[in-house]
Amino acid sequence: GCGGPQLASAVGSRGAGSGRLGGSDAGFRRSQGARQRGVRHTRPRHRPGEAHPSLASCSGVCSPRRRRLAAGPVRRRHRRAEGAALDHPAAGRLPHPAGAIIAGLSEIRQDAVSGHWVIVAPERARRPHAFANAAEKPRRAEPCPFCPGREFETPPEVMALRDSGRANEPGWRLRVVPNKFPALKRNPEQELAPESPWRREGVGAHEVVIEAAEHDLTWSEFPIPKLAELLGAIRSRMTALARDRGVESVFYFKNHGDAAGATLEHPHSQLLALPMVPALVAAELDGAHRYHANTDQCYFCELAGREGAGGVRLILDGGPVVALAPYAARAPFEVWLLPKRHQARLEAAGEVEMEALARVLRAVLRKLDRALGEPAFNLLLHEAPARSGALVYYHWHFELIPRLARLAGFEWGTNMFINPVAPEEAARRLRETSAD
Amino acid sequence: GCGGPQLASAVGSRGAGSGRLGGSDAGFRRSQGARQRGVRHTRPRHRPGEAHPSLASCSGVCSPRRRRLAAGPVRRRHRRAEGAALDHPAAGRLPHPAGAIIAGLSEIRQDAVSGHWVIVAPERARRPHAFANAAEKPRRAEPCPFCPGREFETPPEVMALRDSGRANEPGWRLRVVPNKFPALKRNPEQELAPESPWRREGVGAHEVVIEAAEHDLTWSEFPIPKLAELLGAIRSRMTALARDRGVESVFYFKNHGDAAGATLEHPHSQLLALPMVPALVAAELDGAHRYHANTDQCYFCELAGREGAGGVRLILDGGPVVALAPYAARAPFEVWLLPKRHQARLEAAGEVEMEALARVLRAVLRKLDRALGEPAFNLLLHEAPARSGALVYYHWHFELIPRLARLAGFEWGTNMFINPVAPEEAARRLRETSAD
Repeated sequence: GCGGPQLASAVGSRGAGSGRLGGSDAGFRRSQGARQRGVRHTRPRHRPGEAHPSLASCSGVCSPRRRRLAAGPVRRRHRRAEGAALDHPAAGRLPHPAGAIIAGLSEIRQDAVSGHWVIVAPERARRPHAFANAAEKPRRAEPCPFCPGREFETPPEVMALRDSGRANEPGWRLRVVPNKFPALKRNPEQELAPESPWRREGVGAHEVVIEAAEHDLTWSEFPIPKLAELLGAIRSRMTALARDRGVESVFYFKNHGDAAGATLEHPHSQLLALPMVPALVAAELDGAHRYHANTDQCYFCELAGREGAGGVRLILDGGPVVALAPYAARAPFEVWLLPKRHQARLEAAGEVEMEALARVLRAVLRKLDRALGEPAFNLLLHEAPARSGALVYYHWHFELIPRLARLAGFEWGTNMFINPVAPEEAARRLRETSAD
Repeated sequence: GCGGPQLASAVGSRGAGSGRLGGSDAGFRRSQGARQRGVRHTRPRHRPGEAHPSLASCSGVCSPRRRRLAAGPVRRRHRRAEGAALDHPAAGRLPHPAGAIIAGLSEIRQDAVSGHWVIVAPERARRPHAFANAAEKPRRAEPCPFCPGREFETPPEVMALRDSGRANEPGWRLRVVPNKFPALKRNPEQELAPESPWRREGVGAHEVVIEAAEHDLTWSEFPIPKLAELLGAIRSRMTALARDRGVESVFYFKNHGDAAGATLEHPHSQLLALPMVPALVAAELDGAHRYHANTDQCYFCELAGREGAGGVRLILDGGPVVALAPYAARAPFEVWLLPKRHQARLEAAGEVEMEALARVLRAVLRKLDRALGEPAFNLLLHEAPARSGALVYYHWHFELIPRLARLAGFEWGTNMFINPVAPEEAARRLRETSAD
């Protein structure tokens, strides 16, 4: 055994999923799979009545007939279950988890929207040399550039939430400042130079959200109202940056811990306003558009409704916001958080979503901390691009990737992933882990 | 400064490129750039006479007029220069490197074929907390599972090159064995189960190439004939696996050093035979096909010819094989190696290419070792898929990614990259670094 992603030993010991391969695809004709294989036909296809497996999780034995029926009245029934409580009681009692893995056999899965492939390979969890990329504990030495009293070490703030004090002085609970070493610079006055299709000037913005005055505080320890306030500030900056001249998309991300690429310990995250739509985001938009064109449904609305009603990949049903393990999870214990109401951009989220998001996010982080030993993680916000208006086919969501594995050559070259923990197994473990 | 890729301090001190922004795109109408920006139009476009900047490097002052002319007779002149010697003498004397970066300003570039975007941001090289992911030195303790005498610790070999001994006994120079913890399993007898478009059974192969009997040897230290022999073995396994039933693509990769995802020190690399074409490979094939449809040229043939004739991103002209820094390099000091003759798959490479590839590859690795302090790296082979035949528009090449930076949330979520070292600057430094 060698190379490829490396896994926490905490995971390895229980990584292999149980159950059986869901037989529910037996009804599909072989020729469909064969046609799908050509070089020119690698995109996911959606036809009415042909549900992507991520939407086909049943609450009982999952027969082909059942699954086909699920596209009809069952879907509407699931829709009505939106107000279900946290930790849906039916979730723990599934006799045959749809899509689970026979121990020792891999299964290859494609995301319905992005089109990326994942090899779910429980066999890989048995490897030696596995290790956990636990986020390093903050070591307080002296005030860092993000600590109160060191405001002069950052560029002047563009936003702050404060209990007292004036701009760029102590007394703040949260600050947003331009990155001191920006990848892109905001310059609304600048005349944009002529461009080639393959080149843009580096105009945009690169901001840092300093999320708390306390150097040592992690999101797992944030009070819910503080986390909701932070999410509101992110929404506010996303909205403002999206209106900047020349900005086509805004990307929010948090790197927590050394293994996730963070270089400073003080709790912070980042915003990049870009003069184009990145390729992976464009591919996801295309996929979501195709899905909607073929089914007349928003994929993410269906996903949130189905999983919220007790799917095998449900982690937490938080009322307006649901946390789930994606069908084609790229990393062990990957989590998606999304609202049940259709909202293309975070800008459209109301206070009810923001409060629920804060609650679900903190619970999920505490579950991950407990199950995996405070792992490093990346948190990414996906939303419709800045100029796209209220798209009917796209739906904002957060993706949370614990960085237990190191990305190696295979992932770099293919955007495929090898995941040694089936998402059904990850969801089950996280459901069973306390968030207290 | 925080988050995002982290850079070796060895690089940071000299990271900012010199020169000026090439003004040669001034001739393009503004509206082209604007049209390119919509959500639905994010793919690279190619029109006859409109050269991608990666093909537009000139050997002198690069005026718009000069560059436009370059699409004509200059191109043919460059073509005739294919037999040029190692380290093309003109390369060091360019007064105005086309595409170089004004210090402190970012430039955003798109790859002509893959379509990925890169922010070339010299400003980021000034950050503190930069560090080098040098490959850890092999620490010989006891024989590892890949050492001679421990053959029983791996599954039985599928191929070996030996001076003496029988199968699975010492005496070998090179062994290929199935991965003990495979992501996929080879099973040509198995009846393939019915599939959904979004699911495949994990049938394929996952093999390990044990590249030398010596536990401590790195590729930089391999004698040229040994490296050529190894590349020949890789070609042989690629060819064999591509013929397996159900295999649609074969991916070869090497992870060298801890930061690149390697878990064992003994020199080795891996092969994955897949029952589909990964999304990133499919996107690259689509891009190459579009390029050929619009220009009647193979992009990689043009690239190898142009850079081989003394482009600003040339690293080493090795006769039949050229090493260059790609225009939209995703990482500092990324290197591509490709043959000048058109060959869609490594299978088509003759002994002349294999010997030249070994020579160029070892020289590039020695230059990187010297310039960056023996960095960890990933090496990836891109080639046309197994069932595609001799494509006119695709061309095998190796991509070498020094892992100086850690991939963080931005890269994960967008497949965009922030590269603090302009590829023109990286190429210049590698040209000036000795390979002895």
